[in-house]
Amino acid sequence: MNKLEMTEAIMTAKSKSGMGWEDLAAKVGLAPVFLTSACLGMNSLKAETADKLVEVLGLPGVVSTALQQYPHKRWDQAIPTDPVIYRWYEIVGVYGETIKELIHEKFGDGIMSAIDFSMDIDKEENPAGDRVKVTMSGKFLPYKSW
Amino acid sequence: MNKLEMTEAIMTAKSKSGMGWEDLAAKVGLAPVFLTSACLGMNSLKAETADKLVEVLGLPGVVSTALQQYPHKRWDQAIPTDPVIYRWYEIVGVYGETIKELIHEKFGDGIMSAIDFSMDIDKEENPAGDRVKVTMSGKFLPYKSW
Amino acid sequence: MNKLEMTEAIMTAKSKSGMGWEDLAAKVGLAPVFLTSACLGMNSLKAETADKLVEVLGLPGVVSTALQQYPHKRWDQAIPTDPVIYRWYEIVGVYGETIKELIHEKFGDGIMSAIDFSMDIDKEENPAGDRVKVTMSGKFLPYKSW
Amino acid sequence: MNKLEMTEAIMTAKSKSGMGWEDLAAKVGLAPVFLTSACLGMNSLKAETADKLVEVLGLPGVVSTALQQYPHKRWDQAIPTDPVIYRWYEIVGVYGETIKELIHEKFGDGIMSAIDFSMDIDKEENPAGDRVKVTMSGKFLPYKSW
Amino acid sequence: MNKLEMTEAIMTAKSKSGMGWEDLAAKVGLAPVFLTSACLGMNSLKAETADKLVEVLGLPGVVSTALQQYPHKRWDQAIPTDPVIYRWYEIVGVYGETIKELIHEKFGDGIMSAIDFSMDIDKEENPAGDRVKVTMSGKFLPYKSW
Amino acid sequence: MNKLEMTEAIMTAKSKSGMGWEDLAAKVGLAPVFLTSACLGMNSLKAETADKLVEVLGLPGVVSTALQQYPHKRWDQAIPTDPVIYRWYEIVGVYGETIKELIHEKFGDGIMSAIDFSMDIDKEENPAGDRVKVTMSGKFLPYKSW
Amino acid sequence: MNKLEMTEAIMTAKSKSGMGWEDLAAKVGLAPVFLTSACLGMNSLKAETADKLVEVLGLPGVVSTALQQYPHKRWDQAIPTDPVIYRWYEIVGVYGETIKELIHEKFGDGIMSAIDFSMDIDKEENPAGDRVKVTMSGKFLPYKSW
Amino acid sequence: MNKLEMTEAIMTAKSKSGMGWEDLAAKVGLAPVFLTSACLGMNSLKAETADKLVEVLGLPGVVSTALQQYPHKRWDQAIPTDPVIYRWYEIVGVYGETIKELIHEKFGDGIMSAIDFSMDIDKEENPAGDRVKVTMSGKFLPYKSW
Amino acid sequence: MNKLEMTEAIMTAKSKSGMGWEDLAAKVGLAPVFLTSACLGMNSLKAETADKLVEVLGLPGVVSTALQQYPHKRWDQAIPTDPVIYRWYEIVGVYGETIKELIHEKFGDGIMSAIDFSMDIDKEENPAGDRVKVTMSGKFLPYKSW
Amino acid sequence: MNKLEMTEAIMTAKSKSGMGWEDLAAKVGLAPVFLTSACLGMNSLKAETADKLVEVLGLPGVVSTALQQYPHKRWDQAIPTDPVIYRWYEIVGVYGETIKELIHEKFGDGIMSAIDFSMDIDKEENPAGDRVKVTMSGKFLPYKSW
Repeated sequence: MNKLEMTEAIMTAKSKSGMGWEDLAAKVGLAPVFLTSACLGMNSLKAETADKLVEVLGLPGVVSTALQQYPHKRWDQAIPTDPVIYRWYEIVGVYGETIKELIHEKFGDGIMSAIDFSMDIDKEENPAGDRVKVTMSGKFLPYKSW
Repeated sequence: MNKLEMTEAIMTAKSKSGMGWEDLAAKVGLAPVFLTSACLGMNSLKAETADKLVEVLGLPGVVSTALQQYPHKRWDQAIPTDPVIYRWYEIVGVYGETIKELIHEKFGDGIMSAIDFSMDIDKEENPAGDRVKVTMSGKFLPYKSW
Repeated sequence: MNKLEMTEAIMTAKSKSGMGWEDLAAKVGLAPVFLTSACLGMNSLKAETADKLVEVLGLPGVVSTALQQYPHKRWDQAIPTDPVIYRWYEIVGVYGETIKELIHEKFGDGIMSAIDFSMDIDKEENPAGDRVKVTMSGKFLPYKSW
Repeated sequence: MNKLEMTEAIMTAKSKSGMGWEDLAAKVGLAPVFLTSACLGMNSLKAETADKLVEVLGLPGVVSTALQQYPHKRWDQAIPTDPVIYRWYEIVGVYGETIKELIHEKFGDGIMSAIDFSMDIDKEENPAGDRVKVTMSGKFLPYKSW
Repeated sequence: MNKLEMTEAIMTAKSKSGMGWEDLAAKVGLAPVFLTSACLGMNSLKAETADKLVEVLGLPGVVSTALQQYPHKRWDQAIPTDPVIYRWYEIVGVYGETIKELIHEKFGDGIMSAIDFSMDIDKEENPAGDRVKVTMSGKFLPYKSW
Repeated sequence: MNKLEMTEAIMTAKSKSGMGWEDLAAKVGLAPVFLTSACLGMNSLKAETADKLVEVLGLPGVVSTALQQYPHKRWDQAIPTDPVIYRWYEIVGVYGETIKELIHEKFGDGIMSAIDFSMDIDKEENPAGDRVKVTMSGKFLPYKSW
Repeated sequence: MNKLEMTEAIMTAKSKSGMGWEDLAAKVGLAPVFLTSACLGMNSLKAETADKLVEVLGLPGVVSTALQQYPHKRWDQAIPTDPVIYRWYEIVGVYGETIKELIHEKFGDGIMSAIDFSMDIDKEENPAGDRVKVTMSGKFLPYKSW
Repeated sequence: MNKLEMTEAIMTAKSKSGMGWEDLAAKVGLAPVFLTSACLGMNSLKAETADKLVEVLGLPGVVSTALQQYPHKRWDQAIPTDPVIYRWYEIVGVYGETIKELIHEKFGDGIMSAIDFSMDIDKEENPAGDRVKVTMSGKFLPYKSW
Repeated sequence: MNKLEMTEAIMTAKSKSGMGWEDLAAKVGLAPVFLTSACLGMNSLKAETADKLVEVLGLPGVVSTALQQYPHKRWDQAIPTDPVIYRWYEIVGVYGETIKELIHEKFGDGIMSAIDFSMDIDKEENPAGDRVKVTMSGKFLPYKSW
Repeated sequence: MNKLEMTEAIMTAKSKSGMGWEDLAAKVGLAPVFLTSACLGMNSLKAETADKLVEVLGLPGVVSTALQQYPHKRWDQAIPTDPVIYRWYEIVGVYGETIKELIHEKFGDGIMSAIDFSMDIDKEENPAGDRVKVTMSGKFLPYKSW
């Protein structure tokens, strides 16, 4: 079972179960963003978490095996077209140099890791229109000289 | 004075002043990310904030005028090469579909605005290595049918 | 049933029904542009509208379910080749800076939303050759400082 | 004097004059979108309109000559980055097939001309947020067989 | 039946019939270039011509229906590789500015239409080597101010 | 003197002279398309023609030398944006396969040369709108086996 | 039978036959490079050569028919990745201007034909390492003025 | 003195000297292709050859120094546009797989070197039209397992 | 059996066998990097090594045949997206000019071969975090003049 | 002084000094690869190392300041053309999946860091041709779940 078939199986089972990503995440003990990314084939799960998820969703063991495989992270649109994702691409374009400037000022020469990294997405109710609140935490990795 | 010359003038003056972006931001009453992006030519400032900034940095009025001009937001690397900025591009590639999935689940069909939007970048001290903490807030914009 | 199969099913049923997009739009209470875009898989319908459409066209419930799914808006030609669509791309290229200039002059720094947005396409009879009349309305979204 | 220098001269003079594009357009007897596009170097003006404009702005005759030259319409970003212009590119991507479908249904096989074409951009005041109203009219050009 | 299957059916039948494009064109009353382009899926035929063609070739009515559908004109090589087609691309690259210069000099600011357009391809016998003679006629479309 | 400076010098002198490309072409004994392309730097002239042209336009000998140099034919827009030139690109996209099909049927396996090639552009007056008439003649080059 | 299936059939039969391209080429009376290119679908064969080849390889007549069809020469990697082919691409990049310079010096303004063209690839034994010897002959085609 | 200025200096001196690349190559003891490529900045010369060349052309020592520098081989058109060079690109596209097939059959798994490589370009007089004769010799480099 | 099916067969058998690439490499007498690359279809094996591998994994002879075929080395992402591979692409971008500078200083004008080449990847345990140790050895190939 | 001017100043001084990168690296106490990359503008130096370098080379203090600035790592050829650098790009293409496979087998799901990273380039004398020996060490960064 490849990652594509795995995602399809999970989506169908999740839809039938009536549970959302937050429910599932709570049941398997992971953050919703991470669990979702693993189910979409962009991260791998440890055996016990994968097993717990397929149990919760009533899926066969091959889905757990597929969840544990290390994915090839691949996207085929260098510039995404879906407006949800494009807006993030635009944020990187507009604020990229600003982010670089501020990380360098606060931490020195180095980067924010995209590997030792976490992200949360929350809903912030607001009378003027609800807001998407995103929190990201990435380890600062200093360039080392040698 | 165009935006490029404006950025150069501000960078030189800021460097001489010994103040960081947080200091400047506090003095003009804006968040550091927004002020930095405006000084790098990616946002415009209102007249009073622009005037305050040039006063703080001892710069001539033409810099304030340039800061108030509405910028053409332009970047020429569809895929950025600098590692700081590339990692963000990678996050959009790896987590884009996940973000879309979760925004849709929590809010319905629509997007997170990149216009009615704010971002903060903070340093989180950590014995295992300091972390870059990013908080973003974007208004949810529902697709409207007509 | 995915969006592609959904579009095919609708096109076939519409063709048999002899109704045009305007007829269908009137029956389900939506504008023709919006309804067409949803049937082509680029927007989602609310449950009641989707149900009404499949009823009008005598299609099964799975088509309604597919119409309600939030689409991944995707196009694979960065520069379209079909002359109808290319001419619009050309209009963006030729008049893009003009549009930006005029929106900024009339509204200040900000954009015209493509999300809180509507479009109508009408036929204007004209002895010198009929004309396509397009009306678009997009909410002005001001850049906010923070 | 090339088109670039022409645009710069006009922008400076217009800024000093305190007049907006609508004022200038009214004085020379053209629509604001067309006049703006000509001043940005994307259309040419007839001699009398060009002369009237330079008279209104107190500019030398070489500017009028430059305005009358037939431009090479050139843009160098296949996918625009500025959010104002990108949103229009996005509209073409999202609604392109819909526009094609509706033009074909209403007019038959052919296109909407981008040459025999006009566009207006207006401000529509609205308590829920002002709106950009765009009206476009393009001649329908039927494909001819031979 | 889609356009691809239509082309295949026509090619097979034409090959069996022993008729060339000129023969077929003469029988249905169209120019060879136009008929060929319609059979290759790049133009649509009127009902009576489509019916005549399928009759001549002994093909079923679905082929006629497919011929009448308005095509999505699509090519996927921005720069063609086949030498026959590349040479034409090269001609556009080498002579494009010359064509623009001469059309503007003879007609004023405007373009040669690719919609109200016809083309013929003939063989010119020549002892030094036969020549391909191409004649194209496109309506001049003047840019209109408004 | 490079080709760019040469073109500029010729354009200025031609403009002052009041002569069009047809006039100049007649005086030097070449077709207007060829002469224009050489003046735009896309072909070279023989010494006597180059000398005659600079004599007619009252230009110095260095312009003649530049006209005789073999050009590097270079264009930097793989897909042209100016509408005059784009329409030709579109014709290649829409009719490319048709042209290939007809050349092969009439001549066998081979191509139409873009080197042993000539082109004329004429104005065809027409009450329904003047037309651009283009005639091209390219030697057929058969693929040779060996 | 299309060209892809044709190539597959020939490769399988050739492999079973134990003959190399040189053997086959000798038997059908063509140069190895030309024969190979035709079998890979990049050139067409005359009827008698095609018939001889399928006879030698014990293949059915449809293979001969496919070999006689005029191919659409298509490659989908603008920059090839396989090292054998990339090195040739590199040679064009490194020596392209040199080749142009020398052809112009020896022959005048014109090109080396890739249509009236032949190529041979031989093995040159050498104690310091065998060498690939390539001989190409292309007709010089002078640009003609008109 | 950089490579660009070096090329310009050599071209001017060569033009004045009346010598061709073959003459120069004979005088410095190199093949014309190699010498030309070095003068165009795509290869480096050994000190003695560089010195001899500048002596022959009456150029200052800085030109010799520039000729000895190891170049950064750079071309900026992934697909060349000049017809002379494009035809070579086309040959790589059309015959690339054939070349690979024949090298593998004659030599085994490996490549033809573009580094341990030589090329000659000669004129072959021919009553049916002169021909460009190219001879290339590249060392076969076998893939080594380890 | 093509290379893709070959890889799949090997991966499945390897997974069942419980052996790692190092184990397999030791058994067939090759370095792990080379063996892995051959199994992934990017290198070919000699007959005896291929036979040994299929014997060790209990696979049929067709897998050995496929392993011996000379591969077409092809990758379809000019810029890889998977973070493991992208980091290597980044290293080439950041250190490419440095590598060139140092190879030229130590060896003269020439390159490091990617054909006569070997690579090893080892794990270096380290209390501050294990490290990937890579050793590469490529033959220096001097540019030869001729 | 920007990084470009800095590199030029260092190159000129280094050339006059007669010292190689190894000499300079030894004097300032850094590895040659790192020092070279900093001098080429792709890494920053600490103040004391930068000061030592300019002292050794007899350069003014502004060069030291420029060396300490955090660079924007930028390259403009997505696919490098210089053969030295292209071969490395090719290695990433050919061995990328192999590297990923082996890192995952030895370390688990994660990447080799390009930030906490070092590289050495050495000359290995060899009677069959000297070899470039490269050693790289990058910290393994495991993907963390959250």
